[in-house]
Amino acid sequence: MLRKIAVIDVGSNTSRLIIMAYTPGVSFRLVDQLRERVRLGEGMGAENLLRPEPMDRTVRLLKVFRGLCHASGIDAIVAVGTSAVRDARNQAEFLRRVQASSGITLRVLSGDEEAHYGYLGAVNSLAIRSGLMLDIGGGSLELVRVQDRQARRTVMLPAGAVRLTETFLRSDPPKAAEIRTLRRYLEYMVHDLDWVEAGPDHVLAGMGGTIRALAKIDQLLQGYPLDRVHGYLLTRRAVEEIVTELARLPLRKRRKLPGLTGDRADVLLAGALALLEVMRRAGYTELLVSGQGLREGLFYEHFLRDPGPVTVPDARAFGIANLSFLYDVNWPHARHVQTLALSLFDQLRRLHGYGAAERGVLSHAALLHDIGLAIDYYTHHEHSANLILHADLPGFTHREVALMSQLALYHRRGLPTAQVYPGLLRRQDGDLVEKLAALLRLAEYLERSRTQVIQALRCRIQADRVTVECLVRGDASTELWATERKADLFRRAFRRDLALTTRPAPRSTGAGKRAAAAVSTTLAERMRELTARPG
Amino acid sequence: MLRKIAVIDVGSNTSRLIIMAYTPGVSFRLVDQLRERVRLGEGMGAENLLRPEPMDRTVRLLKVFRGLCHASGIDAIVAVGTSAVRDARNQAEFLRRVQASSGITLRVLSGDEEAHYGYLGAVNSLAIRSGLMLDIGGGSLELVRVQDRQARRTVMLPAGAVRLTETFLRSDPPKAAEIRTLRRYLEYMVHDLDWVEAGPDHVLAGMGGTIRALAKIDQLLQGYPLDRVHGYLLTRRAVEEIVTELARLPLRKRRKLPGLTGDRADVLLAGALALLEVMRRAGYTELLVSGQGLREGLFYEHFLRDPGPVTVPDARAFGIANLSFLYDVNWPHARHVQTLALSLFDQLRRLHGYGAAERGVLSHAALLHDIGLAIDYYTHHEHSANLILHADLPGFTHREVALMSQLALYHRRGLPTAQVYPGLLRRQDGDLVEKLAALLRLAEYLERSRTQVIQALRCRIQADRVTVECLVRGDASTELWATERKADLFRRAFRRDLALTTRPAPRSTGAGKRAAAAVSTTLAERMRELTARPG
Repeated sequence: MLRKIAVIDVGSNTSRLIIMAYTPGVSFRLVDQLRERVRLGEGMGAENLLRPEPMDRTVRLLKVFRGLCHASGIDAIVAVGTSAVRDARNQAEFLRRVQASSGITLRVLSGDEEAHYGYLGAVNSLAIRSGLMLDIGGGSLELVRVQDRQARRTVMLPAGAVRLTETFLRSDPPKAAEIRTLRRYLEYMVHDLDWVEAGPDHVLAGMGGTIRALAKIDQLLQGYPLDRVHGYLLTRRAVEEIVTELARLPLRKRRKLPGLTGDRADVLLAGALALLEVMRRAGYTELLVSGQGLREGLFYEHFLRDPGPVTVPDARAFGIANLSFLYDVNWPHARHVQTLALSLFDQLRRLHGYGAAERGVLSHAALLHDIGLAIDYYTHHEHSANLILHADLPGFTHREVALMSQLALYHRRGLPTAQVYPGLLRRQDGDLVEKLAALLRLAEYLERSRTQVIQALRCRIQADRVTVECLVRGDASTELWATERKADLFRRAFRRDLALTTRPAPRSTGAGKRAAAAVSTTLAERMRELTARPG
Repeated sequence: MLRKIAVIDVGSNTSRLIIMAYTPGVSFRLVDQLRERVRLGEGMGAENLLRPEPMDRTVRLLKVFRGLCHASGIDAIVAVGTSAVRDARNQAEFLRRVQASSGITLRVLSGDEEAHYGYLGAVNSLAIRSGLMLDIGGGSLELVRVQDRQARRTVMLPAGAVRLTETFLRSDPPKAAEIRTLRRYLEYMVHDLDWVEAGPDHVLAGMGGTIRALAKIDQLLQGYPLDRVHGYLLTRRAVEEIVTELARLPLRKRRKLPGLTGDRADVLLAGALALLEVMRRAGYTELLVSGQGLREGLFYEHFLRDPGPVTVPDARAFGIANLSFLYDVNWPHARHVQTLALSLFDQLRRLHGYGAAERGVLSHAALLHDIGLAIDYYTHHEHSANLILHADLPGFTHREVALMSQLALYHRRGLPTAQVYPGLLRRQDGDLVEKLAALLRLAEYLERSRTQVIQALRCRIQADRVTVECLVRGDASTELWATERKADLFRRAFRRDLALTTRPAPRSTGAGKRAAAAVSTTLAERMRELTARPG
């Protein structure tokens, strides 16, 4: 059953609305969003009072949000206030005004709750197992220690970008002494937090507008080939360079830096300094950017809860299945292409020499190779490649995304060129793309009629050829005809001819039947598995 | 109710299968296709006998087709044979073999029927009113005279590309004397056909592999910016240049010409000469390429008939509605954005000075601006632009397609740059794109919550501003807020400020109510109108 929910987040800097359409526990998609930097926390100062002008701006905006919610026919509104609202001495007055004018009841999140929902949004969109999550907002900064995808410890610090700027960086450009004082304050804030320190294989993930803006600027400076910040790796060195540049420029010039929207120029420096201090204290040299946080976390609680968990156990598998569901993928076909491609990969390992990482890329690309069919038949390989690049697939690195996109692009025809994505794919990756694309294409044509008629494969590697014995149940003439016509890429990639033979598939054993039943699970069932409480 | 049908066309050169999914009289899409150049007509010669090898190849391929049809769960197969089968003295034997080995019953089309279905496919995908349609196949060449979208006269000539090549061009490269003889033969064939001659506003449309190949080669030579042949204008001069080049090269070198697949290199020259002779005789200097023909014509007969007509009265409107249906467009919203955009266009005519052609572009772009929402929310404007470029929209010129794509790209944000599509859009078109995109964006934000709350507009043009009075029923706060934030492009394009005022919409009159009811027609109803027999 399709539902629609609105999530509203009234922050110190920006207020945002997202509208999600979803089937509980199965699939969701974003269908609308609005945002405006109304700076509710502006001028709160040490008195912690929301000022009339910022309150008016926010109340007006929430009325607009309410109008769009009403027009969109949503089932529920989840609206929260964070740091500015939480800390305001005149909180009650503000909540009353919001309620009276827009009918929206704001739930004021505690610092721990805010950190928790940020963590939920990020952990469900990244493949992190353990490490630290950092959310820099306008008013506060949250840190969550993650162990085996569970939140173990949380702290909220009054060190958001707007608050730090208003408290410490009052000159334009900021004076060296002001920056020194701010740094000392930050150092003091994180001094006792020994539980944030990095362990082996730990990952630092970050969210919030400050971090997204830093990632965008760094991407522009690097000439980065993808226009996505979710999943981007931001190094400490890169942040240091941006900080040096921001610190010496007056606001007027900071506003003109590439990638910096005018309305964040004034508070970015303080936020970046806070990030650097956390990286130093915890001992991380890079940060994985999450485009998802608080709002998505609030959404996941509704999407997943009762009776399931609020974190998906496998963010990658869930993301792939969600995308497949939205694009109406032929799931038995996709699963079978995956099975055949991995069988080829494993049996031909001696010829390609690739390992688990490359196997994973092939496996996920096989599931997604046909998503472009939702758009157009003749050019579906191009659309699949494009959608994979733009889908913000949770838990994959940008290099993996670029590779999967290339495999989908070449799954039907064409000879892969050594496409270069600066910083992601190098010319030398041409061999990898060619070999994996050849295996995916072979699997696709061995499943050309999409009926799983070729049930399994046995490969024999000879000096001049690879013989693939197809275990067949039914009429595989379409598959054999199509595969023989499309073997060019295989020949080129493996420098061997391809020979196909067939024999009837043996009758299934009990185990085989159970395995077949598992494969024929529908996508909706698969998604319920992926969102179910483990064990 | 969704149906699936396979259409198979056994030609002299190539055999093809398409599978269409459709709701009768409402909407359709291509879901699979196969093709192979099995050259059934090879070596038929003057005896008109299908040779054993070509027959074997074709029978094997049809078995493959049957396998895919079976696997795809289709409701019906429509399979036809054209020139080679029609003319073969051993036709009965071939039909028997096909039936016995694949279970497919081939219907042998007469020359008139073949011409008729080619006409149906082309007329339903082009906006032609009157003129001539030309289909060059492997075995035959068909001409159909069209008057007011109806076929008035038809002829089938034994002048297909394979047949002409085998009969006349036996040397490699062809001798000048051979080409002269072929030209004389063609001249003789069309000599008496005075009914093919062009009248005022007549259009020559062409289909078939020869014409698609010529268009592709010409596009590559021109550096043409779009990768679509449907709707391309091929000039007589361009064909003459390609002919000169083909005539002087041996086959080995012809195969390497850019855009020419190896398996058409041998027969293209003869086909091109036939095209030139038709253009000369009928007095056309250019030809509009149709990517659709015989197979689609056979499909339309099933899609549209009983009790409707077999030609859609308005190919453009039908194509737009079909695409909107496939991408699940919010039709009342799209229609209302169209209404508002055209109202702005008409009332601001004094400021832009554009006419009916530009109004048409705006009108259709308004209907399609949101189709990318089916793919992704945040980047839907990019996806809309991309889909419009790749959808083979029937009846639009490539220039119109490029303009509509640009308008969709800028309907939400961004400042249009003077994008150049060589041969389609020039730098000077920047003003047009900017002004139309500004009107479309204004209309979109005046309908931001997609509820038609702003029912009509009244514009007042002043020296420094345009005041738009919005006639409102309900709460238009989202619309007013959003429009004010997004007025930049309007200010830039019209060098005037934008002021919004509101007043309650007057109670509807009877006529107003009827008009409103017409606008709220569902898309499926609209599509039934578009495929119904005219009143």
